[in-house]
Amino acid sequence: MPSRQTTSGVDLLVPEGTGGPRQRIEGAIREAITSGRLTPRAALPSTRALARDLGVARSTVVDAYAQLSAEGWITGARGSGTTVADGSEHAPPPPPATSDVTSRRFDFTPGRPDVSAFPRSGWLGALRRALREAPGAVFDYGDVRGHPELRDQVAAYVGRVRGARVHPDHLVITAGFGEALSLAGRVLAATTRGAQLAMEDPCLAHHRAIAAATGLGLVPVTVDGEGARVEQLEGSGAAGILLTPAHQQPIGVSLSASRRGWVLDWARRTGALVVEDDYDSEFRFDRSPLGALQGRAPDVVAYVGTVSKTLAPGVRLGWIAMPPDLVDAAAAQKEATGGQHGVLDQLALTEMIRSGAYDRHVRRMRLRYRGRRDVLLQMLAERAPAVQVSGIEAGLQALVELPEGGPTPEEVTAAAAARDVSLHTVTEHHWHVEGGMPPSIIVGYGTPAEHVYREALQALLATFRDVGLVVA
Amino acid sequence: MPSRQTTSGVDLLVPEGTGGPRQRIEGAIREAITSGRLTPRAALPSTRALARDLGVARSTVVDAYAQLSAEGWITGARGSGTTVADGSEHAPPPPPATSDVTSRRFDFTPGRPDVSAFPRSGWLGALRRALREAPGAVFDYGDVRGHPELRDQVAAYVGRVRGARVHPDHLVITAGFGEALSLAGRVLAATTRGAQLAMEDPCLAHHRAIAAATGLGLVPVTVDGEGARVEQLEGSGAAGILLTPAHQQPIGVSLSASRRGWVLDWARRTGALVVEDDYDSEFRFDRSPLGALQGRAPDVVAYVGTVSKTLAPGVRLGWIAMPPDLVDAAAAQKEATGGQHGVLDQLALTEMIRSGAYDRHVRRMRLRYRGRRDVLLQMLAERAPAVQVSGIEAGLQALVELPEGGPTPEEVTAAAAARDVSLHTVTEHHWHVEGGMPPSIIVGYGTPAEHVYREALQALLATFRDVGLVVA
Repeated sequence: MPSRQTTSGVDLLVPEGTGGPRQRIEGAIREAITSGRLTPRAALPSTRALARDLGVARSTVVDAYAQLSAEGWITGARGSGTTVADGSEHAPPPPPATSDVTSRRFDFTPGRPDVSAFPRSGWLGALRRALREAPGAVFDYGDVRGHPELRDQVAAYVGRVRGARVHPDHLVITAGFGEALSLAGRVLAATTRGAQLAMEDPCLAHHRAIAAATGLGLVPVTVDGEGARVEQLEGSGAAGILLTPAHQQPIGVSLSASRRGWVLDWARRTGALVVEDDYDSEFRFDRSPLGALQGRAPDVVAYVGTVSKTLAPGVRLGWIAMPPDLVDAAAAQKEATGGQHGVLDQLALTEMIRSGAYDRHVRRMRLRYRGRRDVLLQMLAERAPAVQVSGIEAGLQALVELPEGGPTPEEVTAAAAARDVSLHTVTEHHWHVEGGMPPSIIVGYGTPAEHVYREALQALLATFRDVGLVVA
Repeated sequence: MPSRQTTSGVDLLVPEGTGGPRQRIEGAIREAITSGRLTPRAALPSTRALARDLGVARSTVVDAYAQLSAEGWITGARGSGTTVADGSEHAPPPPPATSDVTSRRFDFTPGRPDVSAFPRSGWLGALRRALREAPGAVFDYGDVRGHPELRDQVAAYVGRVRGARVHPDHLVITAGFGEALSLAGRVLAATTRGAQLAMEDPCLAHHRAIAAATGLGLVPVTVDGEGARVEQLEGSGAAGILLTPAHQQPIGVSLSASRRGWVLDWARRTGALVVEDDYDSEFRFDRSPLGALQGRAPDVVAYVGTVSKTLAPGVRLGWIAMPPDLVDAAAAQKEATGGQHGVLDQLALTEMIRSGAYDRHVRRMRLRYRGRRDVLLQMLAERAPAVQVSGIEAGLQALVELPEGGPTPEEVTAAAAARDVSLHTVTEHHWHVEGGMPPSIIVGYGTPAEHVYREALQALLATFRDVGLVVA
């Protein structure tokens, strides 16, 4: 059935080989209308004429017209012939959306793991085993808090590894940290009109944006060598605070024991909520990780963990353990914006934790990241002794303080860009330009793929040489 | 290292076999504090005494105390001894959350597919192939709209199967229909203060709850044999309408051609948004599916599809194609509540669509559901001729209208419950008790697992006999 010039003068191009004749006629007429070649109220050929033109049975054309008429593309009244319906105008062609991702060859952006190390076969194997056992009911609509068996596994895991005290019923599975913060923030915002959330300064701008979107006002709490200066909360009226107690993001310090006690006391005195972002606590190299703050006060701390650093951010799986009296509110918030989480990832992660494969992967990655850190430290100690490195006990990033009279952080990141290296400053994470911290850059040494890490370090060293930080 | 009575009189139960001696000491002290056996300011034994008691090196106890001190559980000053820190009180044990899911043996709840038919091996195979090819970068944080290759496949699929005209850049991947509705609603609510969304009456109560949570006011539009009576929108001031044009949920009628044209014209005249819920359009049995409304007007229609009926609701994957000028707003709303979607499911679905496995599965299920429908229709025609069945051209449910003078819908569902059968009424889906529709029940014949379908039908027939609908 080739393309023909129809009796109505409309070139009804009927593409070959896509469906039967009726489908091809329908498609051609739809296309002619949407492309603007057939305009509203334009006459279509009679079914008899078109059938003859195309060499098909007339009933085929009648069926096609009936379908198009039912869909509202065309209208036909006996006697007046068939015409293109009003409202079937050509819509403007969509403009291409621009993508603003700039990716450099060597990426030391903090807060990212080596995504090339995602355990593909481990994940597949876990999913295969889980699918062999799972009852059909897991594929139905489920509990908005997440798959019960995953919550069991996560509760046991965070108890074992982080000293958190979590009942599975109080966990809500989330799409990573972002959704967990949004849920906690929306619970606070729904409870108190005009409520405010305190956040660390510096912190991730992305987290400030998510918190602000919940309707909460934001209050900064500055950071020093003992972590967030939580005593600034006194009299602030904040309804809650987001903290990174294990490893301040991005400075790298731990919240001191006395401040831990103080902030829990403050939360109990004022009825406030502490949201604990335990984002990279699995990676602590020289001593045991500090236990989760939540373990001391499950009644006032919402504990958030994810697999974004242990497996990969793209998995988008995390959890928030809410204080018992706020679980239902968090579940209701999740329900209100889309409900339950996809079950396939939950089945796979459940099985990975249960089988021990998750722990083994974390251990393997901990060794790898420790090796990377040690190489970085050694290189900087030997070749750039003027910089001071801290925040290295844990996590996937180091804080590199620049010497007095040396280059500014911005000069370093510009020099890095010229060598196709991504580096970030602490200043970027401050709420205001004047941060009050010594001028520093952050080296996210977890980010490069394993096979380019040494080369990435050489590019970093070359950058440091360009700005006069390398000794001869 | 057995349990010992320490010199301080505290029974420091140190469990066997969990970690090294230091970990066991730490765990025992944490547990003693959280259980209330060690109260704030209680004295702990000296490191020397405890080491002797437990038969471990003193340095082990010193290390354990240092860790607990850093975590804020205990405080120790030289000379004054070590005590339990303030604020380390025992938190109340979590109450068990109650589950209110009641599940019956034979489930005819509408809007659900046969979840036992989820293609486990097809999904696994698709994920395996996708993981073999995918670059490491897919596991990083990604585009909030979803994996670009999935958006390519979905855009092509909905064009091919539903006549939708979708550019991949205008798609946002979502957690099923719920999140898509929430995003569209939040976009409308953010644009216009006090905006209202029109919705069909009857419709799913769950969808009303999600729409209301966005802050939109809700306006009912009633339904008759031609679908939603969209002319009720005239002068309503609604900023948008949610429609089920292909197969009204739950009545089963299609939106007529003239109403399709009218509502598109209304949307263009008033700047309103039409949200098209194309929830089960893949399952149309007797003729070609009606093309998507969006295909005629991508500039004013947001098109929503999911895999909830084709694969299973538990997968929680769907998509919304936004009009070009609203895409960025929808992406920003998704970013604000948690961001990007998990990439593993997206990789698997991309590969399933690309390979044709998705289409083959849909075809197989269409045949199965058509078979179920035919058996249901035949049974009702033979045994319960007084009921009138409609809404059967498509979808996974039938509307069963009860005869005048016969049982009420509530009497039928009560009789069903007594036989362990789940049945639902149209009344439940109405906004107000007085619906104005003939008394009817809905039979979701997609829901039972394949191997119990015949038995489920027998239970349904027995129910109908109980209420006098079966002829002798």
